[in-house]
Amino acid sequence: MHDESGRPREECGLCGIFGHQDAAKLTYFGIYALQHRGQESAGIAASDNGSISEHKAMGLVSEIFSEDHLQELAGDLAIGHVRYSTTGSSDIVNAQPFTASHQGNSWSMAHNGNLINTRQLRDELEDKGAIFQSSTDSEVVVHLLAHNAHAGFEKSLLNTFAKLKGAYSILLMTRDQLIAVRDPYGFRPLCLGRLKNGGYIVASETCALDLVEATYIRDIEPGEILIIDKDGLRTISLPVNHSPRLCIFEYVYFARPDSNIFGLNVYSCRKRMGAILARECHIDADFIMPFPDSGNYAAIGYSQTADIPLEMGMIRNHYVGRTFIQPTQSMRDFSVRVKLNPVRPLLKGKRVIIMEDSIIRGTTGRSRVKALRDVGAKEVHMVISCPPTRFPCFYGIDFPTDSQLIAARNSVEEIRVSLGLDSLQYLSLDGLVESTGMPKSSFCMACFNNDYPVPPDPQFTKLAFGK
Amino acid sequence: MHDESGRPREECGLCGIFGHQDAAKLTYFGIYALQHRGQESAGIAASDNGSISEHKAMGLVSEIFSEDHLQELAGDLAIGHVRYSTTGSSDIVNAQPFTASHQGNSWSMAHNGNLINTRQLRDELEDKGAIFQSSTDSEVVVHLLAHNAHAGFEKSLLNTFAKLKGAYSILLMTRDQLIAVRDPYGFRPLCLGRLKNGGYIVASETCALDLVEATYIRDIEPGEILIIDKDGLRTISLPVNHSPRLCIFEYVYFARPDSNIFGLNVYSCRKRMGAILARECHIDADFIMPFPDSGNYAAIGYSQTADIPLEMGMIRNHYVGRTFIQPTQSMRDFSVRVKLNPVRPLLKGKRVIIMEDSIIRGTTGRSRVKALRDVGAKEVHMVISCPPTRFPCFYGIDFPTDSQLIAARNSVEEIRVSLGLDSLQYLSLDGLVESTGMPKSSFCMACFNNDYPVPPDPQFTKLAFGK
Amino acid sequence: MHDESGRPREECGLCGIFGHQDAAKLTYFGIYALQHRGQESAGIAASDNGSISEHKAMGLVSEIFSEDHLQELAGDLAIGHVRYSTTGSSDIVNAQPFTASHQGNSWSMAHNGNLINTRQLRDELEDKGAIFQSSTDSEVVVHLLAHNAHAGFEKSLLNTFAKLKGAYSILLMTRDQLIAVRDPYGFRPLCLGRLKNGGYIVASETCALDLVEATYIRDIEPGEILIIDKDGLRTISLPVNHSPRLCIFEYVYFARPDSNIFGLNVYSCRKRMGAILARECHIDADFIMPFPDSGNYAAIGYSQTADIPLEMGMIRNHYVGRTFIQPTQSMRDFSVRVKLNPVRPLLKGKRVIIMEDSIIRGTTGRSRVKALRDVGAKEVHMVISCPPTRFPCFYGIDFPTDSQLIAARNSVEEIRVSLGLDSLQYLSLDGLVESTGMPKSSFCMACFNNDYPVPPDPQFTKLAFGK
Amino acid sequence: MHDESGRPREECGLCGIFGHQDAAKLTYFGIYALQHRGQESAGIAASDNGSISEHKAMGLVSEIFSEDHLQELAGDLAIGHVRYSTTGSSDIVNAQPFTASHQGNSWSMAHNGNLINTRQLRDELEDKGAIFQSSTDSEVVVHLLAHNAHAGFEKSLLNTFAKLKGAYSILLMTRDQLIAVRDPYGFRPLCLGRLKNGGYIVASETCALDLVEATYIRDIEPGEILIIDKDGLRTISLPVNHSPRLCIFEYVYFARPDSNIFGLNVYSCRKRMGAILARECHIDADFIMPFPDSGNYAAIGYSQTADIPLEMGMIRNHYVGRTFIQPTQSMRDFSVRVKLNPVRPLLKGKRVIIMEDSIIRGTTGRSRVKALRDVGAKEVHMVISCPPTRFPCFYGIDFPTDSQLIAARNSVEEIRVSLGLDSLQYLSLDGLVESTGMPKSSFCMACFNNDYPVPPDPQFTKLAFGK
Repeated sequence: MHDESGRPREECGLCGIFGHQDAAKLTYFGIYALQHRGQESAGIAASDNGSISEHKAMGLVSEIFSEDHLQELAGDLAIGHVRYSTTGSSDIVNAQPFTASHQGNSWSMAHNGNLINTRQLRDELEDKGAIFQSSTDSEVVVHLLAHNAHAGFEKSLLNTFAKLKGAYSILLMTRDQLIAVRDPYGFRPLCLGRLKNGGYIVASETCALDLVEATYIRDIEPGEILIIDKDGLRTISLPVNHSPRLCIFEYVYFARPDSNIFGLNVYSCRKRMGAILARECHIDADFIMPFPDSGNYAAIGYSQTADIPLEMGMIRNHYVGRTFIQPTQSMRDFSVRVKLNPVRPLLKGKRVIIMEDSIIRGTTGRSRVKALRDVGAKEVHMVISCPPTRFPCFYGIDFPTDSQLIAARNSVEEIRVSLGLDSLQYLSLDGLVESTGMPKSSFCMACFNNDYPVPPDPQFTKLAFGK
Repeated sequence: MHDESGRPREECGLCGIFGHQDAAKLTYFGIYALQHRGQESAGIAASDNGSISEHKAMGLVSEIFSEDHLQELAGDLAIGHVRYSTTGSSDIVNAQPFTASHQGNSWSMAHNGNLINTRQLRDELEDKGAIFQSSTDSEVVVHLLAHNAHAGFEKSLLNTFAKLKGAYSILLMTRDQLIAVRDPYGFRPLCLGRLKNGGYIVASETCALDLVEATYIRDIEPGEILIIDKDGLRTISLPVNHSPRLCIFEYVYFARPDSNIFGLNVYSCRKRMGAILARECHIDADFIMPFPDSGNYAAIGYSQTADIPLEMGMIRNHYVGRTFIQPTQSMRDFSVRVKLNPVRPLLKGKRVIIMEDSIIRGTTGRSRVKALRDVGAKEVHMVISCPPTRFPCFYGIDFPTDSQLIAARNSVEEIRVSLGLDSLQYLSLDGLVESTGMPKSSFCMACFNNDYPVPPDPQFTKLAFGK
Repeated sequence: MHDESGRPREECGLCGIFGHQDAAKLTYFGIYALQHRGQESAGIAASDNGSISEHKAMGLVSEIFSEDHLQELAGDLAIGHVRYSTTGSSDIVNAQPFTASHQGNSWSMAHNGNLINTRQLRDELEDKGAIFQSSTDSEVVVHLLAHNAHAGFEKSLLNTFAKLKGAYSILLMTRDQLIAVRDPYGFRPLCLGRLKNGGYIVASETCALDLVEATYIRDIEPGEILIIDKDGLRTISLPVNHSPRLCIFEYVYFARPDSNIFGLNVYSCRKRMGAILARECHIDADFIMPFPDSGNYAAIGYSQTADIPLEMGMIRNHYVGRTFIQPTQSMRDFSVRVKLNPVRPLLKGKRVIIMEDSIIRGTTGRSRVKALRDVGAKEVHMVISCPPTRFPCFYGIDFPTDSQLIAARNSVEEIRVSLGLDSLQYLSLDGLVESTGMPKSSFCMACFNNDYPVPPDPQFTKLAFGK
Repeated sequence: MHDESGRPREECGLCGIFGHQDAAKLTYFGIYALQHRGQESAGIAASDNGSISEHKAMGLVSEIFSEDHLQELAGDLAIGHVRYSTTGSSDIVNAQPFTASHQGNSWSMAHNGNLINTRQLRDELEDKGAIFQSSTDSEVVVHLLAHNAHAGFEKSLLNTFAKLKGAYSILLMTRDQLIAVRDPYGFRPLCLGRLKNGGYIVASETCALDLVEATYIRDIEPGEILIIDKDGLRTISLPVNHSPRLCIFEYVYFARPDSNIFGLNVYSCRKRMGAILARECHIDADFIMPFPDSGNYAAIGYSQTADIPLEMGMIRNHYVGRTFIQPTQSMRDFSVRVKLNPVRPLLKGKRVIIMEDSIIRGTTGRSRVKALRDVGAKEVHMVISCPPTRFPCFYGIDFPTDSQLIAARNSVEEIRVSLGLDSLQYLSLDGLVESTGMPKSSFCMACFNNDYPVPPDPQFTKLAFGK
């Protein structure tokens, strides 16, 4: 999930707590569990009867919060956020939650996803005198709330969210309310749980609920504005005239295997991807091995269905830091070996299948395959637990641009040659859908099939990646 | 100038550079020289043909900027700021410069001073949908610029600054302009200089010009909007229907003695304060000593005029850090002695006069006087190089509130008793004015005489100190 | 491998480089790969024609060395060390390498293991006037070298090492030699490899050779003193009158699975432990799961032999920091869940077998088993890939004392009850030996069978754990 | 006192506390007050009934100790040290106190000064098998104590110190004793005070006593070994067959002006140096100014005696950090101005005398004089409050080598030209002695007159500066 690995990068993870005296601390643990959704910056805002405090910084949750920070984040209401940012340290202005005040109200907002009409909304707001201090969608949304404030609060929510196009799962904290919103397509996940003390938690994935020992209630529905306040739960509905389109890539790569997403367990789903792959492919090999750890679960499914042994052919160094000392010239395979070392006697003279969850740029795979051949693997095959990722995502996943997506420019055979493989097979799109047990129409699979539920703004590409 | 010392606290120092390839670096040295005007946060924004980069943090200039930071702050145009903030580390949102974008323009602003109609301006802006992320005046001013943008740029400047009431010296950076503004009363200083390469510098005090080896040209005039761009200098004038009212406290305490302020050298002025005090007082003593280092210059003037020896009766520890380990119970005079230690044989049995620049809370003075008596001083007199500070400042100096200003609640005799002195004498207001050589009508001396040039908003007190 | 986990703690990992211009950098990568053998402190000493430079600090290799450090560690000869220390931060005096000078010679030494006659050797040395600045065995050994220096260098090596009793693998760096020594029993591993440029590497495990792309030559022999200098390799032999006794626990837990130890691959050996366990046990269950990652390899062996599915029933959070914010009171299972979260739907209603490598204190296991039952596991069985660890180690492994070793005080049935298991089975000692393919007489298995090759000094226990 | 300033560098400051439950904390404050004697490393060792704890690090006292550190330094007995080190960060091995154990005893030692027979003592010890881990004299002394231990403790002290040649003020901490030693010449200061609670303090200067509110009792005598234990004070005397030779440079530069050294107040002494200089010189000038702050006190004496005004012609920036960002090319006088800025209107057209305490390399002075001329000073004269420093110090002051001492290679006239002065005059040696009020024979003035009380070892120069 590191930059250099060419892996896709999720933009965000969200967690909010309502009705617990340790709201900021529980939020901290919630985003701790969601760290895999964004490792560049994190933040928490808490409300103590309308007095907002906030702590945001670049870095990992475990590094940037201290007991002192959490004690200063007083109140029984809090929201938190983890984020992947694409530029440098100056990006702290884009860290979330985003907090602003208007006519005596303070709002904090955190979002996951990507609007596709940001440019148009900003233009309209700037014509009315609005100024912008960041490039986040959250700032745009809070401006809209302010401009709609005269209509009354609930009406202003409806007016505001009705103007947004694209993907958004949002947490909004007011003086005494926690509001959770999911766009009408429901691209990104967001679920509701109950704390032991009766309070509520809203989070991107159920693994956050598990850590704070909350009970899962249900997902926030596509098009739902859920208001949690002292009177309990209340839903306002956005107009929806189409079926949901859930992001299927959450199952392929992003979500933690122990989470349930869109009501379905990720581990089980990945295992089925492997099982279906085993049905679709027929490879004569000595064993199957994952690239740890993301390929582990599909590899188990493949192994059980194909009745071929599973081995852990590459061992992770658990103590790899985030920055590296430059190796010496002679260490040509350094970038692979510092993280993963092949088990030499296991691989020597063997025909192996590698299970990989996806191929984005293809650079990392090439050197890993070479490392296997260097220790004597006789044949190296690779199976991928999704179809080729050929198209960019406009809904919150930071795929590289077209020109860097290897499958956008190359045939499967060309990719095979480029990676130095004996064979390469992808899971079919139908197979991927089958692994979820849901109908094909439930999903956004634009990165595989170019079918975008919300057509992107012509100016969009620039803005989206200029973030 | 530390919090615990009960000294008045200046809010800000400003420096901007136009037309030098190392603009950010020169700005860095400029605010380095102005560090005495604010020690809590600092920041620089630079423009590289409209691409704005920024670095702000809590702490001293020498601590928070690295070579790397300065290299990332590319461009030949930059502004910088140092600030004293009254609350904790969360105050980073109030650090300056403040940067925002509107309709393709990016503006960075830094200010020194305090508006007295902030509340009213924010209300009007919020009614039009504006949201606020900080409590700085700069954010209000940039909002006004955006709301006046339709009028054309120069007209929008005039419209915006005409709405402001109170004290402000402002630097505004656009894509390719450096704009320097001083309010019509000219409360706070701001001067213009020329770099060796032909570029320009604008700064709060001339000591910033000296460090970067620039030549002083003139002060920005009260009510002047000076626009510096590739065509040179151009002035727009705000309507002014009254004479300037310069802050006389800059001479008493804030400005560096090597600076010229409002066209007058601070060292010379302070020396004259001491000389006039010597005329006004007649104290029979063995020598005069300053509390280092702020009383040094008036003490020299006093010594030369009264023909009484000058001695350095208390020695500073040059290695005092900003935080302290708690002393043991037996160390009752710790807070004085860790910074200043009396020279025992010098003081024993002697009648001494202390020169102090001002008394704000009176707490520090009391323990220092006690330390002198503990080592055997026979008589301890004190002379103050300004009149009693009895009234709050609404124009940018963070005096404590009325209830904490010792002279607001006590007669001079009561203060003398409270400090444990044999005698206490203040410089007269006329004597203070005389030390400047300027007419009395030139100055704001509200902290001494309750004559406020711009009457504060009734709601002001709360806002001003709630910052 | 964290303290709170109750896992056994290895004392040290070693790496030395001879004959490479980037000796310190290669040593850095060597100890980077050996980080699992000690995480508390690390250090490197380098010799540039006898000018010794050194950097040691508390913390992980990836954190405590910078490019600048490595450049200052000039020379083509270097040794490095990672260490687990049992006390606090003040323990930097015990960090290695240990460097001292004597009659113009500088020696740096690093060791893995534990002498059992330290007390006696120190007494003798102190009687001759020696003073000690640390409690490391290395300091004792260097003192002995100095006291034997008159005999000539090679003779002094023989005299010195002949006096040592216990376990030691040692690297000694002189002005221009790298000397590698293994005690006559060969308790701890040490192997020799060849760099691509013709230079040499000596390291605790072959995974260090892999990272720097060196070729394995052979192990340092038990009782061998190997001198590497500009003339090549030269061996002096210590008198040996018994067969080697290799530490079998290296296979059970310590060594990385991708390493070869004592000539045998660890992954393969662990897989065989699982396979033999599957033969020895007969458990009717739905699947076998490891506690990640140490149980992975034996679980694979068990799964393949027993033909029972392997699942990854608990998912690691890859972003767990080394210190934790205290959880709230309601989070009772926090210490398990923050690291490992059970996959709820996988476990619900299932009969599961857990593969664990060893049980030391038993505390961690208990809460993990509870976490599985909490999500609905119907039966929880556990198999251990070694016999009960009943006795302390005097040769370099920091097992807890007798009173904390759960198997020292409890029967298997009592442990089963304590952990809340449906069944608990350990691998037999013969099975463990069989997994290595070597004769039983090759091993020290004192922690299992109380058969100590070198009887510990009566005073030993105190000293060993007072380190 | 920074390296780049070419100022002489003191090696050390010492403080020890006996009989106070907060011994480490009081020691901390003691070395805090002595920070001017060494700014590179600091350390404290404390004894809690023989259990020694220690904290040492590179950096300032105020930076490297926390409340936590002081609490871990338990016990009612402690010694501390500040040190100037001539090499890089790796020098932590040379930080003091130095702690070692021998036959159940633990000794911690800290020293100020320099032995001239270190090489010979080390040779003898190494012949007996001793090894050395640092290049400090303390390590040599502790070795000697161990080798003499058989003689009984007090005899071992006498035997040990009788072997030392050169300058040493030493604190030695045993299980329950604080031992203070001054060499028979008494080169370096050391004084004894009484704490309010009845305990004792020993420190290099009385300013340390002042901060912890202790009462000065007396100096440790030259040749005295003072043992402080539960029975009180007890003195053993080293054989002395010559008069003391106190370092006169302590008065010229090192000691704090508020301290008493060798029984005499430093401020008063420096003032007399200025007064005598005024008698010896006759310069027609407008005023005298010091380079702050070291020249302040002699300048006051000169001003009062010559009846010429004193001015503070250069202003210090109080916020200068210890490292600098590189200036731009155009800032040629940066290194002066960043610290000291001339007061332009004060200097313009004036004839000024600068008071300087000493000239070592001459580099700093040259650029400061230039800065004064640049702002228009008409004449610049300089007077120095000591004679030319022509010879190296072998007793603990880190003067640069001969070739860098400007007065070792140049006549006064040549120095005047080199510094760009109108005139330059030094205080005479007799004048310097007169300022102390003590007989000439009391002092070591070898740096001025080449008369070394203890002739340095021919090999000495190399070792002394190779430290």
